[in-house]
Amino acid sequence: MAAVVAFIGIGIMGGRMVKNVLKAGHPVRAYNRTAAKLEPLQPLGAVIAASPREAAQGAEAVITMVADPSALAAVLGGADGALAGCQPGTLLIDMSTVDPGTSRAMGAEAAARGLRYLEAPVTGGVGAAEQGTLTIMAGGTSQDFAAARPLLATMGKKILHVGALGQGSVMKLAVNLVAASIITSMVEALGLASKAGLDPHLVAEVLAERSPLIGRAAPRILEGDYAARFPLKLAHKDVQLALAAARDLGIPMFALASVAQLQAAALARGYGELDQTATMQLLEEIAGFRVQRLTPTQPSSSRA
Amino acid sequence: MAAVVAFIGIGIMGGRMVKNVLKAGHPVRAYNRTAAKLEPLQPLGAVIAASPREAAQGAEAVITMVADPSALAAVLGGADGALAGCQPGTLLIDMSTVDPGTSRAMGAEAAARGLRYLEAPVTGGVGAAEQGTLTIMAGGTSQDFAAARPLLATMGKKILHVGALGQGSVMKLAVNLVAASIITSMVEALGLASKAGLDPHLVAEVLAERSPLIGRAAPRILEGDYAARFPLKLAHKDVQLALAAARDLGIPMFALASVAQLQAAALARGYGELDQTATMQLLEEIAGFRVQRLTPTQPSSSRA
Amino acid sequence: MAAVVAFIGIGIMGGRMVKNVLKAGHPVRAYNRTAAKLEPLQPLGAVIAASPREAAQGAEAVITMVADPSALAAVLGGADGALAGCQPGTLLIDMSTVDPGTSRAMGAEAAARGLRYLEAPVTGGVGAAEQGTLTIMAGGTSQDFAAARPLLATMGKKILHVGALGQGSVMKLAVNLVAASIITSMVEALGLASKAGLDPHLVAEVLAERSPLIGRAAPRILEGDYAARFPLKLAHKDVQLALAAARDLGIPMFALASVAQLQAAALARGYGELDQTATMQLLEEIAGFRVQRLTPTQPSSSRA
Amino acid sequence: MAAVVAFIGIGIMGGRMVKNVLKAGHPVRAYNRTAAKLEPLQPLGAVIAASPREAAQGAEAVITMVADPSALAAVLGGADGALAGCQPGTLLIDMSTVDPGTSRAMGAEAAARGLRYLEAPVTGGVGAAEQGTLTIMAGGTSQDFAAARPLLATMGKKILHVGALGQGSVMKLAVNLVAASIITSMVEALGLASKAGLDPHLVAEVLAERSPLIGRAAPRILEGDYAARFPLKLAHKDVQLALAAARDLGIPMFALASVAQLQAAALARGYGELDQTATMQLLEEIAGFRVQRLTPTQPSSSRA
Repeated sequence: MAAVVAFIGIGIMGGRMVKNVLKAGHPVRAYNRTAAKLEPLQPLGAVIAASPREAAQGAEAVITMVADPSALAAVLGGADGALAGCQPGTLLIDMSTVDPGTSRAMGAEAAARGLRYLEAPVTGGVGAAEQGTLTIMAGGTSQDFAAARPLLATMGKKILHVGALGQGSVMKLAVNLVAASIITSMVEALGLASKAGLDPHLVAEVLAERSPLIGRAAPRILEGDYAARFPLKLAHKDVQLALAAARDLGIPMFALASVAQLQAAALARGYGELDQTATMQLLEEIAGFRVQRLTPTQPSSSRA
Repeated sequence: MAAVVAFIGIGIMGGRMVKNVLKAGHPVRAYNRTAAKLEPLQPLGAVIAASPREAAQGAEAVITMVADPSALAAVLGGADGALAGCQPGTLLIDMSTVDPGTSRAMGAEAAARGLRYLEAPVTGGVGAAEQGTLTIMAGGTSQDFAAARPLLATMGKKILHVGALGQGSVMKLAVNLVAASIITSMVEALGLASKAGLDPHLVAEVLAERSPLIGRAAPRILEGDYAARFPLKLAHKDVQLALAAARDLGIPMFALASVAQLQAAALARGYGELDQTATMQLLEEIAGFRVQRLTPTQPSSSRA
Repeated sequence: MAAVVAFIGIGIMGGRMVKNVLKAGHPVRAYNRTAAKLEPLQPLGAVIAASPREAAQGAEAVITMVADPSALAAVLGGADGALAGCQPGTLLIDMSTVDPGTSRAMGAEAAARGLRYLEAPVTGGVGAAEQGTLTIMAGGTSQDFAAARPLLATMGKKILHVGALGQGSVMKLAVNLVAASIITSMVEALGLASKAGLDPHLVAEVLAERSPLIGRAAPRILEGDYAARFPLKLAHKDVQLALAAARDLGIPMFALASVAQLQAAALARGYGELDQTATMQLLEEIAGFRVQRLTPTQPSSSRA
Repeated sequence: MAAVVAFIGIGIMGGRMVKNVLKAGHPVRAYNRTAAKLEPLQPLGAVIAASPREAAQGAEAVITMVADPSALAAVLGGADGALAGCQPGTLLIDMSTVDPGTSRAMGAEAAARGLRYLEAPVTGGVGAAEQGTLTIMAGGTSQDFAAARPLLATMGKKILHVGALGQGSVMKLAVNLVAASIITSMVEALGLASKAGLDPHLVAEVLAERSPLIGRAAPRILEGDYAARFPLKLAHKDVQLALAAARDLGIPMFALASVAQLQAAALARGYGELDQTATMQLLEEIAGFRVQRLTPTQPSSSRA
């Protein structure tokens, strides 16, 4: 029989991932800070827990999928935290994006209580979360990875054991720093070409050859659609974690540091809840232009 | 019968492109500053010219494919330049990567002599040049584009008319600034992950999902292969042209400016003739590590 | 008798410098693109010329003080340019801020016509221009420097011969890049402190210990006074010239490149004619705050 | 009678400051992690303590002067920490440079134990520490500031109450970010001018007009003297704290972020214990030149 799984963090990503866990037949005990997001899970068979601790009770594996290191600390630690609810030997699997230091600290805390800890951050975005085709980059012991693998396989397609605890986080930060840099370069290139009077649809089409990320993101920008697939505030958080990891490892990051400040400027404008592409809006405001153009089928009265 | 074509600039790219022009049946009059590079073209039927002017004599179209704006000015202008050899009505097609101002200035000079001028920079790299599958982004009048199209089709697959003279250059600079940013982010990510002890092959594999550029470039870095596909000095030149175009258009480029300085630092180390990925070597020297690792088939004694 | 001097470029700086030349007893032939600025010089004894060429006629020394390399080329070259009006042996003294390549090119052109050429850029700002206490950093031959020295001494206090033609420009660019960086850091520091709720007057007072530039600039910012002492567009031009010189010399400029982009962003907002401190306004707009606070005479109830 | 003072942290700065406290007649109880540094204080009358807790016992005021937030937490917290040794009502005065969040957190911890807490970071460097002429920027309540003022006056000349707890730290970070930016711009300017062949002594002399910091730092660079007045690792720590505070306050810091990465690169080269000017060495290595030149008294055979 499939293992009982506690799933903590039912957000944009977690809400899609947990459905694949349920679909694979695992009994799921779900918790989320904002309880309303749990409601759609009840008809699917999930047990709704009132605290991370309650979710963890009786679970053989506890999955966490939250926004950042402090959110992770909040759901794992304290009187109502998941650690307090676990029975010895339980496997904690953190799928959030955090820094390697946080993973190692949480792993140490878990070990001190006789628990096991694997970090397993993911890449692929909302679409892959929905379809269960995430790439999962696990860091931890071989035994813990082997134990988690079947469960991870319900959510992902490429399941990698990249090294010891902390190294999964580094891998994820490396992936995300590249993504943030690509998005930023797309924004700068679209800005340059649009201000020069080029058809941004053509520009987007050509730039898409450079990266599938651009292929997905550029058309949304051209429609003025900044609804968050990956919110700017989280993209910025990951870039900051990457910069912090680089600092700890002793390696300069000249380009990424400037990417971070462009994001910071857009955050200062209040765009944190928008998609990470919202740096485009900042650039438009600074340079006094709009990248959106008529799409062929739109009437001219809807012109931005 | 196919039009007589002058082809000026037989370098890494031009040397491959001209062969596709020859293969399509065009009589070709070729010129290159370093004459030795012209030799392989003689057995393929090309007429070797002693100057750009001589190459242009009797040609219906003159293609230029040189390193930068000053090289372009050198082959077009002056007593021995191509402009001096053209008969009225000849179509000049510059496929180099230059700034929009240079394109417009050259176009004006051509027009003053009764000549026609199209800019048609390319993307796709050495492989696409060889296979005749370049993407070509032309700027100029519709008539000149229509006239050039069949000839361009011998070298490229996607042949776009992106706008007026100068806009082709902007499109190309936009494409190349994205490429330079992607390469830089890959270098920073590989540096971070390698210094954290991750297997760089695994990192390269995961990052490749973000961009086909990374899929091609990362494996070469891991083999320590910095032979120039696209030399750093040219990549830097294009980034500088993009920054200059952005300056003229009034748009800031925070991230690209830092990419440019990282390239400048690698150039200062003497890596200009190496591939644009050679910023990796700079980062290794600064941070005291090596990204290269054993490939599975190498004996451990060859470990870097 | 004092030498006849042509003075070309009667702007914010030149208009003050020429008065000290007149005061020292030199007959002056003045030219300016905008003729209205010449009027105040007539009552002081200056002869008003209708072109740079006319100004240069009969002059023993020709001083140029214009905005940038292209303005310099415009007043020196062409049919109406100063070079065309000079008699052989005339000493041209360019006191503008240009790049070393421009100085060397202009020097070569002058030499080809049997003229002598000294670059003598200045530092000290409007106040020192008025009081004749500029620092002057000359590049050229020792003979030309010795010949120019008495004339330069009418405008400056510290008259330095820093090296060959071109090296005066480098010295000036070095001075101005430091100034631009100091102004930028002041803007960032004032922004940080103001957003944290500190009294900006106190912050300005403490920061002024770091640099007399801050001591002069910060109080004006706090009064919302962005009238140009040194216009942002010229400050940016100098930073760009410094970056270009660094490129030519093979030296990266990581921090300066970011300073340049912050300036570029403020220029894109339309602040080019304001003082170089107008990057403060950009930062305020991005981050949604105002650094200006009560001046001591305002009642505390109106405190922001 | 003068109050009994615990002084914790006898480093480059603290070792000089404590002597002025002693000179003013305060009985001092001193602690330092490396005990050897305490020895010179014994003949001056200081009581040497074996732990921060022991130092704090019986003291009316406890001064801390340590390297960073984690060092501060280490000497204040825990079983052997100063907090554990204080009697209720004791005034803790932290003179270290930390971030505002740390100050507020420590202040809250102190308050929870019935203690008072003032942050009082300093500026002026080793010379001012020695002569008792530091500028001190205190954050905390007016009562605590008033109580601390006489003691602070033994170490400083300009004693400012800049605001609530946390705002002293922001002021200090603002001061230090300007200093780090000035040093960086001097390094870039010296690099540019030296590579252009200018006499660096002349450059240093002219640049010194821009900032007294340059006036002190440039001559040492020209002598190849990188002994730490203010170690690069601490300068970088302060820049990072400023960037973190800017992040929290929602304000971008484009230029400072690049300054930070240049420092990070020099740290990665192993220059953390050298003076903050050691970024000059990094630039020399990258660009292949040496800024040091003959000083007037050296024979030319010793030229670098």
